[in-house]
Amino acid sequence: MRILLSNDDGVRAPGLAALYRALKDIAEVTVIAPDRNCSGASNSLTLHSPLRVEQLENGFFSVNGTPTDCVHIGTNSPLGEAPDLVVSGINDAPNMGDDVIYSGTVAAATEGRFVGLPAIAVSMGQHGHDYYETAAQVVADLIKKLQQEPLQSDFVLNVNVPYVAFKDIKGTKLTRLGRRHRAENMVRDSDPWGREIFWYGLVGPQRDDGPGTDFAAVREGYVSITPLTVDMTARDDEERVQKWLDKTK
Amino acid sequence: MRILLSNDDGVRAPGLAALYRALKDIAEVTVIAPDRNCSGASNSLTLHSPLRVEQLENGFFSVNGTPTDCVHIGTNSPLGEAPDLVVSGINDAPNMGDDVIYSGTVAAATEGRFVGLPAIAVSMGQHGHDYYETAAQVVADLIKKLQQEPLQSDFVLNVNVPYVAFKDIKGTKLTRLGRRHRAENMVRDSDPWGREIFWYGLVGPQRDDGPGTDFAAVREGYVSITPLTVDMTARDDEERVQKWLDKTK
Amino acid sequence: MRILLSNDDGVRAPGLAALYRALKDIAEVTVIAPDRNCSGASNSLTLHSPLRVEQLENGFFSVNGTPTDCVHIGTNSPLGEAPDLVVSGINDAPNMGDDVIYSGTVAAATEGRFVGLPAIAVSMGQHGHDYYETAAQVVADLIKKLQQEPLQSDFVLNVNVPYVAFKDIKGTKLTRLGRRHRAENMVRDSDPWGREIFWYGLVGPQRDDGPGTDFAAVREGYVSITPLTVDMTARDDEERVQKWLDKTK
Amino acid sequence: MRILLSNDDGVRAPGLAALYRALKDIAEVTVIAPDRNCSGASNSLTLHSPLRVEQLENGFFSVNGTPTDCVHIGTNSPLGEAPDLVVSGINDAPNMGDDVIYSGTVAAATEGRFVGLPAIAVSMGQHGHDYYETAAQVVADLIKKLQQEPLQSDFVLNVNVPYVAFKDIKGTKLTRLGRRHRAENMVRDSDPWGREIFWYGLVGPQRDDGPGTDFAAVREGYVSITPLTVDMTARDDEERVQKWLDKTK
Repeated sequence: MRILLSNDDGVRAPGLAALYRALKDIAEVTVIAPDRNCSGASNSLTLHSPLRVEQLENGFFSVNGTPTDCVHIGTNSPLGEAPDLVVSGINDAPNMGDDVIYSGTVAAATEGRFVGLPAIAVSMGQHGHDYYETAAQVVADLIKKLQQEPLQSDFVLNVNVPYVAFKDIKGTKLTRLGRRHRAENMVRDSDPWGREIFWYGLVGPQRDDGPGTDFAAVREGYVSITPLTVDMTARDDEERVQKWLDKTK
Repeated sequence: MRILLSNDDGVRAPGLAALYRALKDIAEVTVIAPDRNCSGASNSLTLHSPLRVEQLENGFFSVNGTPTDCVHIGTNSPLGEAPDLVVSGINDAPNMGDDVIYSGTVAAATEGRFVGLPAIAVSMGQHGHDYYETAAQVVADLIKKLQQEPLQSDFVLNVNVPYVAFKDIKGTKLTRLGRRHRAENMVRDSDPWGREIFWYGLVGPQRDDGPGTDFAAVREGYVSITPLTVDMTARDDEERVQKWLDKTK
Repeated sequence: MRILLSNDDGVRAPGLAALYRALKDIAEVTVIAPDRNCSGASNSLTLHSPLRVEQLENGFFSVNGTPTDCVHIGTNSPLGEAPDLVVSGINDAPNMGDDVIYSGTVAAATEGRFVGLPAIAVSMGQHGHDYYETAAQVVADLIKKLQQEPLQSDFVLNVNVPYVAFKDIKGTKLTRLGRRHRAENMVRDSDPWGREIFWYGLVGPQRDDGPGTDFAAVREGYVSITPLTVDMTARDDEERVQKWLDKTK
Repeated sequence: MRILLSNDDGVRAPGLAALYRALKDIAEVTVIAPDRNCSGASNSLTLHSPLRVEQLENGFFSVNGTPTDCVHIGTNSPLGEAPDLVVSGINDAPNMGDDVIYSGTVAAATEGRFVGLPAIAVSMGQHGHDYYETAAQVVADLIKKLQQEPLQSDFVLNVNVPYVAFKDIKGTKLTRLGRRHRAENMVRDSDPWGREIFWYGLVGPQRDDGPGTDFAAVREGYVSITPLTVDMTARDDEERVQKWLDKTK
């Protein structure tokens, strides 16, 4: 099995290294990751300038682009044989609920949806660097399952892992994405020359974090696995919208 | 009604100006848009450096960031009263099928999902600058409907408009997103110093463009309206994934 | 006479527009300027990605690059006939003393050193937007002199104009660059997530601002003109260095 | 002796590592270098966004900025005790003649001009990675001389080293900067979507490369040392400009 491994924290991130160590013995792993931290990159593409690939001394490939660019290069260019599976992470913070639409970690996995097996995005359930080994083990186990029992698909498995030792994991739950309330207001500040600047503020509080959500699973000590699709069609709302359109003709 | 208008082609794009002209008489419109073309920006956020807002001579606000940044500033900062509705576009090319996950136009609308009314993203069904008036008229009509009959929601209406005169539009269809095959391989080239560079290649051919899809509606001359959700949970696949998880325990 | 006009405050800066208005009647003026504010760009070149040129509605050309890139495009590419003279400004703040090595305004002029006539960089002697007309008039007068009496050269005339009305200018002084003490320490701060960031602090106090310097001329109400060369060889120090090299053999 | 070491090829460049190895035994060396290749950065400053410093596993500090930013941080911020000497390089290509005004390597040294000892910029006389040891030895020897016989100054020693083994160096010459003719035209190309792009072309041929120049010294197998000043005042031209100003009054 050939795995393409990427992330959004950048090619030198410890979470990437931890995942590489866990996977290199069960598959042939190629690492292609951004040269800079790309948190918040979402599915952004570098369309206006060309990409450059550089191989580092540890064999990892570094790209002057986004997570999506990295996986696109790994799956759509003649750098070598196409991978059987794309894995992204380990992100140093959670990617749950609404936040996944901003996530470069999830985006990297999404870009790997064409290769046959379900791409895997993996994130720590809490910000920190202490339990990468737990998440690495969780992913290695998932991949062994895929090797044993392939799961043909074009979706992504979005995995969030409790911030505990592997032995303290309570189990695995299949979840849906929760929802957040809107974010806090931006932080208004000024630079040293007195010119106004804005920074993103804190994320909003959780609005839907009840049973079945990724928020709940991780909070209770379970690995959360949410299957994600790129088809954002709001099927539940179709009828309502159709009625509205008819009414206002 | 207060409208926040943004786009991803940048604050000086003709599609933005055309939409502004069509909306300014039916609502109070504030324009906040990126200072550069951000095609392919997806939902990316500028987290590592602060944002700066500058008001241009025509009254539009220009931001050194992404479409998502622009709408976030317009809805989560004290620049003024919160909008009742967020509108994004007119994009100078289609945003249909899988491509919406990369779209800055759709992302700007998505970021406006918290304001109460369904955010609207609007794109030309074909690349070009000749029929912005058509799309502007379509959006103005949708907004008049919303003014007459509010549609409480947190989804996005993704609108793609045929590249024809307004009178030649055949009607409106509620659609789902189509699907594409994977993209062409990247274009491998070298810069003037002989160093290898990669550019994105062409998008893949349409894989699912049959009845009900956005591709089909626009091809047949209809305005396509697809309600989009940020909840990417792949509900149709949950059972299959649960079975797979159980089987491989 | 064909003039290539650029700046570092960006294509939409009011100082550029003021200078354009003053020059368009005495020469054929092409404006090529950066799409963003490039203060502090020095002579930096965009080598790793390609440049794109876009003509705005007012006829100015906008480039996604640095001041040096803009002038290089205007003098080394087939956009049209080569200019007879390169002018850069009006910068919204002074470019005097050591600071000229960081200046994008001066760099744009420097890049025009090959066209035959001395390139002109012009800056307001004090930060502000109220007296661009003064500086524009000063430059127009200099160019009329050049038209009347050409000055063959490959140097740059670095012009700093007192922040007063044209009638209050006391005259013109040929000056040398003054010197500053080292800058204030950087400003240490943290972003909203508590991560350490650094901003440039204030410039250092003037160390050599006595008679003959640009600092002194502007302070006393004169236009300062300093001829600048790209030959940074420290001729005054050659002997000392040679002695040192000999001594330590 | 405390040395601040930087470069413009980026913190992972082999020339930087080679120089570090040669200096760490004769001084206390702190490395602060850009996270990306900054060739052509000149003296550019990052004024519009804040800088971030990250320490890599090898102890080097990586900065999301320019060579000038790196040295400014190392000399003007409380990261530790101020250095006694700033060294920049080894650049993987020459920095001679007019080209020094574009050089990030020279700029890094220039930013170190306030610390008391003459800052040193060092470059390979020819593009390539085979003879960094030669240049590293040349710099180590210069620093030993400075330790033995300090040379109080605020200029930069710009060192270019022939691309040969250390034993094949013919000696050292104190030189002046040569001059080039203007560069080749830009390369006009198009991206995969058919949109026009421009790349920098080749540098111009040498115009003044006779006896006494840096070009000549390196060509003949000597280490070239050119003292550089930040005072760009064109003293040789002052009289001519004064006459011209008087004539055209």
